[in-house]
Amino acid sequence: MLNFEFYNPARIVFGRGAEEKTGELAKRLGTKALLHYGGGSVKATGVYDKVVRSLEKAGVPFVELSGVKPNPRLSLVHQGIKLCRDEGVDFVLAVGGGSVIDSAKAIAAGVPYDGDVWDFYLDEEKGPFTALPIGVVLTIPAAGSESSTGSVITNETGWLKRAMNKEVLIPKFAVMNPEFTFTLPPYQTACGASDILAHMFERYFTQVEHTDLTDRLLEAAMKTLLIYAPIVMENPTDYDARAEVMWTGTIAHNNLLNTGRIGDWASHNLEHELSGIYDIAHGAGLSIVFPAWMRHCHKAKPARFVQLAMRVFDVDLAMEDDEKIIEEMIRRLETWYKRLGLPVRMSDAGIAGDRIGEMAKKLFIGQPEQGNFMRLTEEDALQIYKLAL
Amino acid sequence: MLNFEFYNPARIVFGRGAEEKTGELAKRLGTKALLHYGGGSVKATGVYDKVVRSLEKAGVPFVELSGVKPNPRLSLVHQGIKLCRDEGVDFVLAVGGGSVIDSAKAIAAGVPYDGDVWDFYLDEEKGPFTALPIGVVLTIPAAGSESSTGSVITNETGWLKRAMNKEVLIPKFAVMNPEFTFTLPPYQTACGASDILAHMFERYFTQVEHTDLTDRLLEAAMKTLLIYAPIVMENPTDYDARAEVMWTGTIAHNNLLNTGRIGDWASHNLEHELSGIYDIAHGAGLSIVFPAWMRHCHKAKPARFVQLAMRVFDVDLAMEDDEKIIEEMIRRLETWYKRLGLPVRMSDAGIAGDRIGEMAKKLFIGQPEQGNFMRLTEEDALQIYKLAL
Repeated sequence: MLNFEFYNPARIVFGRGAEEKTGELAKRLGTKALLHYGGGSVKATGVYDKVVRSLEKAGVPFVELSGVKPNPRLSLVHQGIKLCRDEGVDFVLAVGGGSVIDSAKAIAAGVPYDGDVWDFYLDEEKGPFTALPIGVVLTIPAAGSESSTGSVITNETGWLKRAMNKEVLIPKFAVMNPEFTFTLPPYQTACGASDILAHMFERYFTQVEHTDLTDRLLEAAMKTLLIYAPIVMENPTDYDARAEVMWTGTIAHNNLLNTGRIGDWASHNLEHELSGIYDIAHGAGLSIVFPAWMRHCHKAKPARFVQLAMRVFDVDLAMEDDEKIIEEMIRRLETWYKRLGLPVRMSDAGIAGDRIGEMAKKLFIGQPEQGNFMRLTEEDALQIYKLAL
Repeated sequence: MLNFEFYNPARIVFGRGAEEKTGELAKRLGTKALLHYGGGSVKATGVYDKVVRSLEKAGVPFVELSGVKPNPRLSLVHQGIKLCRDEGVDFVLAVGGGSVIDSAKAIAAGVPYDGDVWDFYLDEEKGPFTALPIGVVLTIPAAGSESSTGSVITNETGWLKRAMNKEVLIPKFAVMNPEFTFTLPPYQTACGASDILAHMFERYFTQVEHTDLTDRLLEAAMKTLLIYAPIVMENPTDYDARAEVMWTGTIAHNNLLNTGRIGDWASHNLEHELSGIYDIAHGAGLSIVFPAWMRHCHKAKPARFVQLAMRVFDVDLAMEDDEKIIEEMIRRLETWYKRLGLPVRMSDAGIAGDRIGEMAKKLFIGQPEQGNFMRLTEEDALQIYKLAL
């Protein structure tokens, strides 16, 4: 086990009616809010009205900025920073999923900073070391941004997608009502589950030895997700199943399950190249990349995959041969993705794959070191993309 | 799953050499520390010197108060409160195990309070709503107080042992170096492991339905402890095994594993009556009480015990009969306790048991409702004590 520091001060307020506490929670963060959200869906579902009612009841003044898109854009962030400064806003309330929260984090970091907030995405040495406080009303279990240190923003100038990670970006509170996820389109529920599972795979595949507690905690959370994601697909209004998925999504990414170990995020980056070129959701890109990544990379430490196969995918050791056990596990994973309606090959998503050479090259631009469980070369990346065709 | 609120802002700094950061961490909490500890052991092991060196290096002035005993006393707390006020201390640094931390919490809550800090232990309505910040250098994995809301203090007037639980009592940081536990006497290591396991049992046994994620997280942590506690008994300087036990001890009691469920703490109270009369360590009392409590109370929901038997104690369902499966699990638990050198019956600890009628009566004084998984009557308590003879 490696030395580590763990700190996560996000207050989680979870359950039916949790949103009614938004106003009181927001009041502790400052005097005037930026209410930040996407667009139609929070209005259609009534979440927007509930949040506004709670803010009004608590007497919290706010200004609004909507229009956050998937892969949230820097231009809207700049607009939000200006608005906060002009209006004397001193905290940001994000109502939505990962994109809205990430955009809110960028605005919160940008307001007290003299330079361009994009600096933080290019150079972690620059900060942010301070930010406006952030509150969250979560509507999509997926990104884990509601209690994470991270924010991913796309700069339209050059279409660069970059991340920043700092403690000051952890939201002060996250209101999580599983009922808010009842109305998610099935494909979005599925992509969210795939993203949550990926956050756990990425932590699980480590070369660090003696990580038994966090191994088992990860296995516990993975098992829960594997069981409940298909259940919510079949019955979208099953409260308890939605609750299991939603709480798993937070725990998967709040860094507790990462303590004492170093994960491998190459699969995430391999996916970014895929969704960067083709119009495919992040979760769907991950269900394509993971089986291929596993088939190519398990050789770096087969024992880790055998453990996962036995403990989470119930593959029996009686199969004896490691390769057979691992292949059986990957097939079971593919079956799970398919059951959720997700693609497991580029061809399933209508992607021809004629640009995989270009993708394998681009992966290393500005980020030459890919992978910790297995350090990838461009040839490795190409092989993985080939396995995903 | 029940609605819940989860908030734990303790910063955990874990690993070899972690104590070197104590001074810098302490500096963020205030201008002058009360250095609070037990006595000989932190001096004998060199922990005291390391902490003092780190404080001096960071330029943190401090005054000292030693002499904390197991079952920490109110009189020393009063002494600490006076010392802090006289010396202008604005934060408390606890160096030790649960008793030292609980005593530090009481002092921290008492300093800014006009009345007697004992009020908080008698009436949770009174507070504390504010407290001096608390830092911890942990030397014993057991109580989980390093990131919990709780403090248990004994008032020598009437020998009342009572708890307070409030968010303001969560330490701001906990420095945890597993090497500091290498020199623990074996019996103390064993009692600590028993206490940690109890914290998980107490959360696990719930009548709340749909608690799958937290069930599995608890099972993961229990399994880890069951494996590593015997290993550290055999090889006290096995760093990785010590690290697994130490980190499990914190996670067992930081309330994450309690989210969305209501546990059952009657077993803890049954133990308090035992150790209240006889001079027996809390962990040893728990290893006596739990098998008996399980034998008596499993009937309130056998399925919960069967799940634990299968998932954690590897009892095979092929045994078919619930009663047999549960009895087999309890026997395996007893074997584990014995392997650690802990008693599983009062007779193992040289306790005659002629006062169990008195204990069963006393259990309900001032706390008429005992148990959530199974609500106990005085007759139930007596039966449990009889099973523990």
